[in-house]
Amino acid sequence: MANESVFNESLFEKTVSGIQPVDQQLIEKAKARQLLLTKPQGSLGRLEEVANRCAAIFGSLTFSVSKLRIVVFAGDHGVCAEGVNPFPQAVTTQMVLNFVRGGAAINCLARTCGMELEVVDVGVIGPLPKMAGLIDRNVGKGTRNFCEATAMTRQETLAALCVGIEMAKRAIAEHCDLLGFGEMGIGNSTTASAITAALTKRAVREVVGKGTGADDDCLRRKIAAVERALEFHRGNLNDPFNILLSVGGLEIAAMCGFCLGAAANRRPVLIDGFIATSAAALAVGLQPNVMDYLFAAHASTEPGHTHLLELIGQQPLLNLDMRLGEGTGAALAMKVVQAAVAAFTEMATFESAGVSSEKDAAPIQ
Amino acid sequence: MANESVFNESLFEKTVSGIQPVDQQLIEKAKARQLLLTKPQGSLGRLEEVANRCAAIFGSLTFSVSKLRIVVFAGDHGVCAEGVNPFPQAVTTQMVLNFVRGGAAINCLARTCGMELEVVDVGVIGPLPKMAGLIDRNVGKGTRNFCEATAMTRQETLAALCVGIEMAKRAIAEHCDLLGFGEMGIGNSTTASAITAALTKRAVREVVGKGTGADDDCLRRKIAAVERALEFHRGNLNDPFNILLSVGGLEIAAMCGFCLGAAANRRPVLIDGFIATSAAALAVGLQPNVMDYLFAAHASTEPGHTHLLELIGQQPLLNLDMRLGEGTGAALAMKVVQAAVAAFTEMATFESAGVSSEKDAAPIQ
Repeated sequence: MANESVFNESLFEKTVSGIQPVDQQLIEKAKARQLLLTKPQGSLGRLEEVANRCAAIFGSLTFSVSKLRIVVFAGDHGVCAEGVNPFPQAVTTQMVLNFVRGGAAINCLARTCGMELEVVDVGVIGPLPKMAGLIDRNVGKGTRNFCEATAMTRQETLAALCVGIEMAKRAIAEHCDLLGFGEMGIGNSTTASAITAALTKRAVREVVGKGTGADDDCLRRKIAAVERALEFHRGNLNDPFNILLSVGGLEIAAMCGFCLGAAANRRPVLIDGFIATSAAALAVGLQPNVMDYLFAAHASTEPGHTHLLELIGQQPLLNLDMRLGEGTGAALAMKVVQAAVAAFTEMATFESAGVSSEKDAAPIQ
Repeated sequence: MANESVFNESLFEKTVSGIQPVDQQLIEKAKARQLLLTKPQGSLGRLEEVANRCAAIFGSLTFSVSKLRIVVFAGDHGVCAEGVNPFPQAVTTQMVLNFVRGGAAINCLARTCGMELEVVDVGVIGPLPKMAGLIDRNVGKGTRNFCEATAMTRQETLAALCVGIEMAKRAIAEHCDLLGFGEMGIGNSTTASAITAALTKRAVREVVGKGTGADDDCLRRKIAAVERALEFHRGNLNDPFNILLSVGGLEIAAMCGFCLGAAANRRPVLIDGFIATSAAALAVGLQPNVMDYLFAAHASTEPGHTHLLELIGQQPLLNLDMRLGEGTGAALAMKVVQAAVAAFTEMATFESAGVSSEKDAAPIQ
């Protein structure tokens, strides 16, 4: 355990310090190439912006995005003791089984969009049997209730971060060109709200929403829980690592690590909704260069999401009023990113296709 | 020719009169089924709304969307004589060749999204060789300049409408579950603006945009051309058929027919951007029940698009600042629709997956 802890600390630090910004010159080169493709200038809108940044991430104008993978991280939350969720906590475990059996929304979307799906138990209470298709990296049986304790120990936090780093590294070693991530964890919209309040310094009321479907009483309990937590941890919310440790979650730490791992290994990564974005925002807090590798998939209906996206300089690709999590928004947006890259790398040029461009138009009287 | 004309008139009338509204009860049944699926109520947002309407279109809660096809209709526009476009008119022909060779944006997107693509010459000036992959249904070598003549004869209009009807019927006979359409035609954003002004009664300035990239002079010529056209055809713009004949285009008539054909044969159809929407709006004008079968793919940056979408009661699925046409927006949105249907038809229920729902939560003090 002591050795593992030293290993985790070192992997985490090495990963964070290895994250370089993308080469801005490649973005300029990609913009120049866009002008040669058989389409009016700028007519693919945000697809062009996405493809240009992907070129900078891959460090090349000739790259491809053919293998896509979504990783869903699951964990339980001690704050459920505060009555913050309309679903019983057992649903985390039940839904993990649903993922592994292929019956959840993310399974349907990943199949339709032709992407791999991995399910990782980082902190589920369980019990979960050993099953093909379930990656067991359980760091702890849920977090402690952060209204009255730190959510995780330093060792647990590092271990969960390293689960995410490992999953990203492995995906890239297995030739995944584009990554996405999502989560499952009853209570984790409360956790994400606490992280958002701590990161953005916004009033708790502005960043707490109804999550999976809280009624008014439940919403009041969520707000009260986050307010108590911020008060309890007051002196310890000044940096992203301590925010994560104090009011975070095991799957949130893993998603944060996943962003770090993707950025360190230079691959684009799609952030799902509110909870995933709280993890991405922590990663950006730990190392601002991470921002260059992130794409916000969609605008969640959760009120805190907008503030987080602002903080990390992201404009979501989709707005479909979704609020499910699981990586469902990421899956749809990954297809948009893949299409954007295909258009950029596979389209004919005016010259190669013998198509006249604006400058060939006859002068008009 | 006389026989063909009688045939077209009869096919058109039979198609329009055969379009039934969807069964609203099936939408209610689909909503009820959504509540049983393993996700919080309403958490898939617009995907749920899309799936519910698809169920009503298919007339079933157990349907699938596995074969997708986009049809691109191409035609030339006499109004190019007014200097309304920065690209030379020959680009229509050149781009059709680019489509057939697989080098255009829509080819890249259709390949990425796993959908078939058909390219139909409805009214290209050419010359276009006989080529595998190019469907020759040329009704005329472009339209007349609608600033000083009717764009098409009654026979041409009916023939082009029937090209679209035929393409939709054939796609559905070939087991396509989901259709999309797009266009290519230098000058056709001017044509779509004239149709939009005639349909919405808005001021010309409100519905004319920069299209593929008009500069200020070009934009002034576009506005002037549409104003002259509306003045010239003043007495003949009181119904959709005459608007189409007077200021429409051959590929626009075909797209209009495609909407009619899809609706008559009960399949969902994705509208691309501004120009495609002008055709869809004419179809809705001809038969309001068409509305039930349409999905607006994306919000184009063209100013007239919003007004057209309002007119036909559609809210676009995507907003990616695209303005290319070719069916590129439709391709991306078709993947969203397919995913929405997959989630609806393939997701486990709370009961089948043994997942607790909100009502199973322990009461909170």
